[in-house]
Amino acid sequence: MITNTGPIAVTMGEPSGIGGEIAIKAWQQRELLNLPPFFLIDAPQRVKGIAGRLEWDVAVQPIDRPEDAAGCFATHLPVLPLELPVPAIPGQPRSENGAAVISSIQQAVELTLAGRAAAVVTNPIQKKTLYDAGFEYPGHTEFIAKLCRTGNPPIMMLACSELRVVPVTIHQSLAEALKSLRTETIVETALQTGAALASDFGIERPHLAVAALNPHAGEDGSMGREEIDIIRPAIEELKRLGHSVTGPAPADTLFHERARKTYDAAICMYHDQALIPLKTIDFRSGVNITLGLPIVRTSPDHGTALEIAGTGVADEASFVAALKSASGITMHRQRNPS
Amino acid sequence: MITNTGPIAVTMGEPSGIGGEIAIKAWQQRELLNLPPFFLIDAPQRVKGIAGRLEWDVAVQPIDRPEDAAGCFATHLPVLPLELPVPAIPGQPRSENGAAVISSIQQAVELTLAGRAAAVVTNPIQKKTLYDAGFEYPGHTEFIAKLCRTGNPPIMMLACSELRVVPVTIHQSLAEALKSLRTETIVETALQTGAALASDFGIERPHLAVAALNPHAGEDGSMGREEIDIIRPAIEELKRLGHSVTGPAPADTLFHERARKTYDAAICMYHDQALIPLKTIDFRSGVNITLGLPIVRTSPDHGTALEIAGTGVADEASFVAALKSASGITMHRQRNPS
Repeated sequence: MITNTGPIAVTMGEPSGIGGEIAIKAWQQRELLNLPPFFLIDAPQRVKGIAGRLEWDVAVQPIDRPEDAAGCFATHLPVLPLELPVPAIPGQPRSENGAAVISSIQQAVELTLAGRAAAVVTNPIQKKTLYDAGFEYPGHTEFIAKLCRTGNPPIMMLACSELRVVPVTIHQSLAEALKSLRTETIVETALQTGAALASDFGIERPHLAVAALNPHAGEDGSMGREEIDIIRPAIEELKRLGHSVTGPAPADTLFHERARKTYDAAICMYHDQALIPLKTIDFRSGVNITLGLPIVRTSPDHGTALEIAGTGVADEASFVAALKSASGITMHRQRNPS
Repeated sequence: MITNTGPIAVTMGEPSGIGGEIAIKAWQQRELLNLPPFFLIDAPQRVKGIAGRLEWDVAVQPIDRPEDAAGCFATHLPVLPLELPVPAIPGQPRSENGAAVISSIQQAVELTLAGRAAAVVTNPIQKKTLYDAGFEYPGHTEFIAKLCRTGNPPIMMLACSELRVVPVTIHQSLAEALKSLRTETIVETALQTGAALASDFGIERPHLAVAALNPHAGEDGSMGREEIDIIRPAIEELKRLGHSVTGPAPADTLFHERARKTYDAAICMYHDQALIPLKTIDFRSGVNITLGLPIVRTSPDHGTALEIAGTGVADEASFVAALKSASGITMHRQRNPS
């Protein structure tokens, strides 16, 4: 596990999306929100262009190396320069810029792996544009895992101040998610989540709540057998390994205010089971945290928002939360190096 | 559609559960909460016993007919007497009392159909105990529908002050719910919901939001085709019929505070998709409202809570909300008789 200080590396993301705007808005509030120093890996002209068009007051400072970011962060937004083959027009992604999007991610990860940046915060990407540019990974996370040369599949945690959720199955249809649900995957996800809660969040003996799949947790098999055949055996195995785990809990009883206080993270069986409660509770400030990587990586929990790109209205709350979360995890890892 | 005044008929529910306690607690707050007059269809001795054991101050008044309830409600809790073959012990359901549980429901429905009660609020039942007593319906709602001789399958709406949700599929495993999802069922559910919002809630031109099934609404078919093959055609049909409908919306974006203000009810594809957001937002005061019946029927959105029955700690909030909701619907129907 890499534990380093230094500034946070922020990727460009899709340059026709809202990534630049939310980064500038966050930087403008650096003092008010006590934000950790960060630098963009982006085209300085693009960043200046966004600020200029919106008449925002921001001094962009191209830097030669990450080590120069902290020194100027108080007065300038540091940008490690990247070249864009064609100008980025808000709302209109072009595959010609795909390689630069990928390069920004690659540099951020490599600088962090090398100990020259503390963590990576990724801005949203437009997958289709990257595929047109030859990108061969299902998404951001898989690409970063590959760059980090990790064996285990990385795990997605979504977090806001009131709730942490980890879906066992993620980006597949609900029917496929049901078919692919396995005891081993639940156990593996829970183990990685438990380890991350200890190392990254400083929770000494984390307690996990495991959600059921079916209504009323299947009512003893009368409404589905997955609780009996798949989920309960996973919970028993986790208990056998000495972990503090409860469930399978009917999913509709797991996320109200009092219930949320009884666990450190909820292990969910499918994407929406995790995301519905999280986004119902806090639509603005949810953060996506990739567990199981040697580096710290977080990202805002939204897309490129092409339809509002360039207007300046994009909400920076999730990006700000991603920065703070990355910084918090970095500090916990420094305190408890493994 | 029956539109009547008069008191609300409250069923006994499982006599070893919390039904009696929450009814007494509600009655004690009748003035504070401005509750509509109601009467229990229950064994007076049982109700007195609960109050006696808990040392609660309540004067139980056996009545001969519903018409006597309103006159004494201010000072006494009216009970239309019912006999229990064996004493009801908190936490220990007995099938010998099953017939009385069924009779209480039957009387409440018949009195309401006859215009002698305004509405029915049902206390929770223990299905297993009723099955042992020969009950042959999947649940409360189906039994009541049968007593009302309605052709259409009744529809379940869950409501709190901030959200109304209607699941298209209900009490089946998630895998079966996926298999049974049909365009016609979505259309039928939405039509009945729209009609009920107008007649029962006074919403002149209701707007419905239809939830997607898959993560990110399937991302144009790359994560499931149900949106394209099943849900979208339903929305198009509803629009063709002149209804105000949007969707399919990614379910995780549909229930946060700002989103909730954009529609009158959300049509959900499965039980937990509807119940997770509702109970996350308001775990205490959710109400179950049966749409598509000639009578008004609501119920608290919880079970018999056998484990706390008799202790007096049961929360009456959902029961109180069910009374208020039944009263509100009755008033709307009186204003707009169909």
